[in-house]
Amino acid sequence: MTAQPDQNTAKARTFISVDAMGGDQGPAAVVAGCLISAKANDEIAFILHGPEATLSPLVSKHPILAERTTIRDAVGIVTMEDKPSQVVRTGKDTSMWSAIESVRSGEASVAVSCGNTGALMALSMIRLRKLPGVNRPAIAVLYPSSNAQGFNVMLDVGADIRADADDLLRYALMGASYARNGLNVDTPRIGLLNVGTEEHKGRTELKEAYDLIRKQEQKAGFEFVGFVEGGDISGSKADVIVTDGFTGNIAIKTGEGTASLIGRRLKEAFKYSLLSQLASLLAYTSLMRLQKKIDPRRVNGGVFLGLNGTVVKSHGSADATGVSAAIKLAAQLVENGFNDKLAARVAAILPTEESPQE
Amino acid sequence: MTAQPDQNTAKARTFISVDAMGGDQGPAAVVAGCLISAKANDEIAFILHGPEATLSPLVSKHPILAERTTIRDAVGIVTMEDKPSQVVRTGKDTSMWSAIESVRSGEASVAVSCGNTGALMALSMIRLRKLPGVNRPAIAVLYPSSNAQGFNVMLDVGADIRADADDLLRYALMGASYARNGLNVDTPRIGLLNVGTEEHKGRTELKEAYDLIRKQEQKAGFEFVGFVEGGDISGSKADVIVTDGFTGNIAIKTGEGTASLIGRRLKEAFKYSLLSQLASLLAYTSLMRLQKKIDPRRVNGGVFLGLNGTVVKSHGSADATGVSAAIKLAAQLVENGFNDKLAARVAAILPTEESPQE
Repeated sequence: MTAQPDQNTAKARTFISVDAMGGDQGPAAVVAGCLISAKANDEIAFILHGPEATLSPLVSKHPILAERTTIRDAVGIVTMEDKPSQVVRTGKDTSMWSAIESVRSGEASVAVSCGNTGALMALSMIRLRKLPGVNRPAIAVLYPSSNAQGFNVMLDVGADIRADADDLLRYALMGASYARNGLNVDTPRIGLLNVGTEEHKGRTELKEAYDLIRKQEQKAGFEFVGFVEGGDISGSKADVIVTDGFTGNIAIKTGEGTASLIGRRLKEAFKYSLLSQLASLLAYTSLMRLQKKIDPRRVNGGVFLGLNGTVVKSHGSADATGVSAAIKLAAQLVENGFNDKLAARVAAILPTEESPQE
Repeated sequence: MTAQPDQNTAKARTFISVDAMGGDQGPAAVVAGCLISAKANDEIAFILHGPEATLSPLVSKHPILAERTTIRDAVGIVTMEDKPSQVVRTGKDTSMWSAIESVRSGEASVAVSCGNTGALMALSMIRLRKLPGVNRPAIAVLYPSSNAQGFNVMLDVGADIRADADDLLRYALMGASYARNGLNVDTPRIGLLNVGTEEHKGRTELKEAYDLIRKQEQKAGFEFVGFVEGGDISGSKADVIVTDGFTGNIAIKTGEGTASLIGRRLKEAFKYSLLSQLASLLAYTSLMRLQKKIDPRRVNGGVFLGLNGTVVKSHGSADATGVSAAIKLAAQLVENGFNDKLAARVAAILPTEESPQE
């Protein structure tokens, strides 16, 4: 517990605010995730939020972690059942609130939490506030795809169940920033999710958004590929899939569920006979390589976009590997100065909106 | 070409009206699919629609098929690019129109087509008309799941991009009928697709639909499990997933895309080294068994529900195996007297709607 965020260290470290509580696997998994990250990346330090009595023994076992972790005592825990509105009103003593507060005060550059998504988004909106020009913040995820970079960005996947045409334009801008800084795609290709690729199809707000996004294409430095379909979420036609939070949430959960069903069926297939069991032994390294490629734990983390500060939401069931992946993503975004760039992109669109030039 | 639908045969056969044109693989694949079905099921006969000059040579090669196939000459072809509204106005000479006409006139009990979904739905609605009490017909598919029967029913997957609470109630009733007659589930469990399982979550029409479906639970002979999420589409919590056509269409295409990405990655993994290639040889039968279980060609066919007649939409890219699966499904539904049962279920709900009893 020697590191202090405000203290001058020989090397300036990236401070990551970590909510140690609220994940399904408890604080030990979160601390184990921090340990993996600390070993892998010398440039990060942690502000860890939760009950000090619980966290201290877990952290102090590992000198490499202890020397760059500050613990912020917070005894309250946001559970998966807590209602966001309730947490916003009465959650001041919670580790989640405390984790967001470290970003608000500027002592950390980014927050990571495995907790209740709705509560985390509500707290982030209230405490960090929305960026100028953003009406609805969004949650963006990386989805395995056949693209060169191996993933597409999809947003919104559940911050808000509604999105009008203006929101969808902002999602396009924010998603493009995320693809540049999170996936190193220079000129991201934006696709607008719809039930067909013809221009005349789909809901009214989608047709409006189509025109708005098309108009910003040049200025915003992305390529707009038009409407895309569900199959393109894992495809190579676009790098960023823009949709409302209702549709996006159902799409990722459908994809996750389908992948998990196939995984279970694959295991059954290999257990079927002695021959197939032998085969699975031989194929072990190949299958592990495959699992590494499509394992959601390796790309664990929805990112909240459109706020004054970056928040990474790790999967509730994340284990140490998952938490460490979320921390890696958080550190990378901070190192790229992601949130400032995103804010500039969204701000640059404002005058055009207010006085449209045809 | 000896079979005539209106002719008394020794054994009464189920006449299936098949649109031979419009699929990506052309009429040869469709005729090959009919041939597979003819060999497998002695009780079906075909009315085949398309240019006689093209179809006759394909059919006459196979006596087993020829003796129970009637060809209806139709020279026009609906392409995947044709707009539904255009086909409805000017498509009288097409094989698709002709195929629907055989159901309308009663000479066939069900139609099967691999063609343009939008045009097929538009033609079906105009020519067959909606069932009393149905405002929006729906397309239902079978989705691989971890349920005992191996599949869930999902609807609507794209007949209409909108659905209000009343439509969703009809979808629940129609989906339950389909699960009973297509999957042999006696008391289907109905789930309403949403972004969370809490009762207070989601869009207004979903909350309304929740109450409407709950109210009909007893009378309609299904079990309502409430809201379900994207992951439940391939899960075991419900047998029937009810949603609007926009969300449903994106969900199935996301699932298909994800499954296909995993399939490609799996093949790459097995090609990686000599050892993994050997493993794939050993695992061959297991992997084939898996493919058979999750192969979309084996459960090929969206069914149009809510019309005066049953129409099965086969995948545009269906090969002979796919076409034959769609024919099998069509025959099974006819044998179960599916459409009459469905109509009775929907009709039974009408009085309750008009004079609600609390």
